Amino acid sequence: MRVDGTHYRSIWFNQATAEVGIIDQRWLPNEFRTAALKTREQFATAIRDMWVRGAPLIGATAAYGVAMEMANDPSDRALDDVWHVLNETRPTAINLRWALDRCRNHLAQLAPDARPAAALQLAHDIAEEDVETNRMLGVHGLSLINDIAARKPSGEPVRILTHCNAGWLATVDWGTATSPIYHAVDAGINVYVYADETRPRNQGGITAWELGSHGVPHAYIVDNAGGHLMQHGMIDLVIVGTDRTAANGDVCNKIGTYLKALAANDNGVPFYVALPSSTIDWSIHNGVLEIPIEERPKEEVSTVQGKSQDGQIATIGITPAFSEICNPAFDVTPGRLITGLITERGICEASTAGLAGLFPERAK
Amino acid sequence: MRVDGTHYRSIWFNQATAEVGIIDQRWLPNEFRTAALKTREQFATAIRDMWVRGAPLIGATAAYGVAMEMANDPSDRALDDVWHVLNETRPTAINLRWALDRCRNHLAQLAPDARPAAALQLAHDIAEEDVETNRMLGVHGLSLINDIAARKPSGEPVRILTHCNAGWLATVDWGTATSPIYHAVDAGINVYVYADETRPRNQGGITAWELGSHGVPHAYIVDNAGGHLMQHGMIDLVIVGTDRTAANGDVCNKIGTYLKALAANDNGVPFYVALPSSTIDWSIHNGVLEIPIEERPKEEVSTVQGKSQDGQIATIGITPAFSEICNPAFDVTPGRLITGLITERGICEASTAGLAGLFPERAK
Repeated sequence: MRVDGTHYRSIWFNQATAEVGIIDQRWLPNEFRTAALKTREQFATAIRDMWVRGAPLIGATAAYGVAMEMANDPSDRALDDVWHVLNETRPTAINLRWALDRCRNHLAQLAPDARPAAALQLAHDIAEEDVETNRMLGVHGLSLINDIAARKPSGEPVRILTHCNAGWLATVDWGTATSPIYHAVDAGINVYVYADETRPRNQGGITAWELGSHGVPHAYIVDNAGGHLMQHGMIDLVIVGTDRTAANGDVCNKIGTYLKALAANDNGVPFYVALPSSTIDWSIHNGVLEIPIEERPKEEVSTVQGKSQDGQIATIGITPAFSEICNPAFDVTPGRLITGLITERGICEASTAGLAGLFPERAK
Repeated sequence: MRVDGTHYRSIWFNQATAEVGIIDQRWLPNEFRTAALKTREQFATAIRDMWVRGAPLIGATAAYGVAMEMANDPSDRALDDVWHVLNETRPTAINLRWALDRCRNHLAQLAPDARPAAALQLAHDIAEEDVETNRMLGVHGLSLINDIAARKPSGEPVRILTHCNAGWLATVDWGTATSPIYHAVDAGINVYVYADETRPRNQGGITAWELGSHGVPHAYIVDNAGGHLMQHGMIDLVIVGTDRTAANGDVCNKIGTYLKALAANDNGVPFYVALPSSTIDWSIHNGVLEIPIEERPKEEVSTVQGKSQDGQIATIGITPAFSEICNPAFDVTPGRLITGLITERGICEASTAGLAGLFPERAK
């Protein structure tokens, strides 16, 4: 997608320096910075400390992390170590484990001297597959937006609410929840996006930044506002992403998603989740009960980062020092509240039968 | 309630200086500052710019504002002017209009030279009535907490979620939603309070501050977290306040309240609203459709105030400059989602019949 007219992806391999380039998302939406990663520890830091975030991008980053480690040391021991070091950086995102397993399973069968080139090619493949998967989410999701646009009075935009950042910055390109939006914009459909702030980390600022950078009309709203907007007919469609999808259609996504699903359900607003099938955890049959929820550091809640009046990036404290803080990072939206799941193979009901229908070879 | 062991109210008359003292709440939870108000313009600023906030405290502040103006100029013209200047400071809070009407109706019947003393006495009366009303909300609400405590395993706290600040700082003393909590603490019941942050103005920081200052165990959570906590049985009771209550039991409160009511309803968690009957607007019979929602300045959303690393109060920008911002300040929770209304006369169903049963002389 575009940043000031230039096309970017969220991760790329720099042939000249043999390093991996990323957008260091910690500074967005205040500053656009890139970073170069080479060592295992740099990749672990980038994933753990959320220089990169979003399940698909985490998976691609992990694959490039394995590739960089193999270029440095292609031994069995190094392959095993990099799997463990990267796997423990984020406990919830299913794509991290998925990408690491894929790399290890493929590379372990090869002689060490064949691993560096194969690992880099595999990382490229994973990145390209992500782009193609997200493109397909957009193609399928576009049909939903098209249908709503066809029922709107002329000149009125299709108003779409999204939560967190399931945008191109959370993937390699296109995004998951945003892919239908970018496809709609490309198709000339009038859309207007409400971006939830998404405390505590305010990924809504990143969503607003990437939408605005690409030229998509949008508003930034606090997480509390969506219910009121839906109650008053100001939202036509909700599309969110997911960090892990259970086989029964329950969706684990950024904390607060469940509240928006409840409001959509209460007001008859269609609520869709866009997901690459790599986020489906086929071993989990009840997402609400079984998906572990990551409790993240209290500083995410007690502090906010932004730009001070002198233009510097600053972090301020906003909570009383004596207060305890509880910071669950995700919640699980039951499939019963979800109108449909947008996958790379099409749209299905958020249920065991729905997912099994689209992915019969995976469902058991 | 207590601040560092000293008892405070949120507003008081200083006999020595003939000024009205308030806690300037713009600096909480970072700093505890008080301010003195004397002129009509100072009172208007204090209400409009939220040095004081919360429907009951706004009403009491307006009454003291009328009293200070009458001490300065007890003419009919001044009485009319102060009514208009103060009335237009906040469009949603019903108590503001209620207190101003009460002052004008009472004082207009008196000769100008009798007005200064009468106006001050009336402001005192309104403040004392508020304290007594809130005390009764606590007495009635305590029964709910008592019932839950009786069913809990020994040693487990009653876990109560609240949204915004309907605490003693939003009233003259006790608070509305917090009065049952303070009464429970006084009665030796083990309670634990989850305070919603309440973006955009983060009144949850004020709630956490007043709870902690009084010694009540609590956690500060982001607005997105409550649904997850309820889904996992971590909340026993929700109590919130209200800025305006419709005659049919619909409740207009700080934006995001509706989302918590949906989550409570979805998880069988009792959801109560504590309200002095002065917040009931008997002329409104469908709160969702009829209560106007105040759209507040975009800077409330685009900036956050806190304490910088050098200990100074700082305001930082957190949204992209090109993003539009939509900032509805309140939402309306339909009575069907509310387990009960806690009033100074007792607890009733959130319905026309429920309110009419407790207030037969007001219902039409």
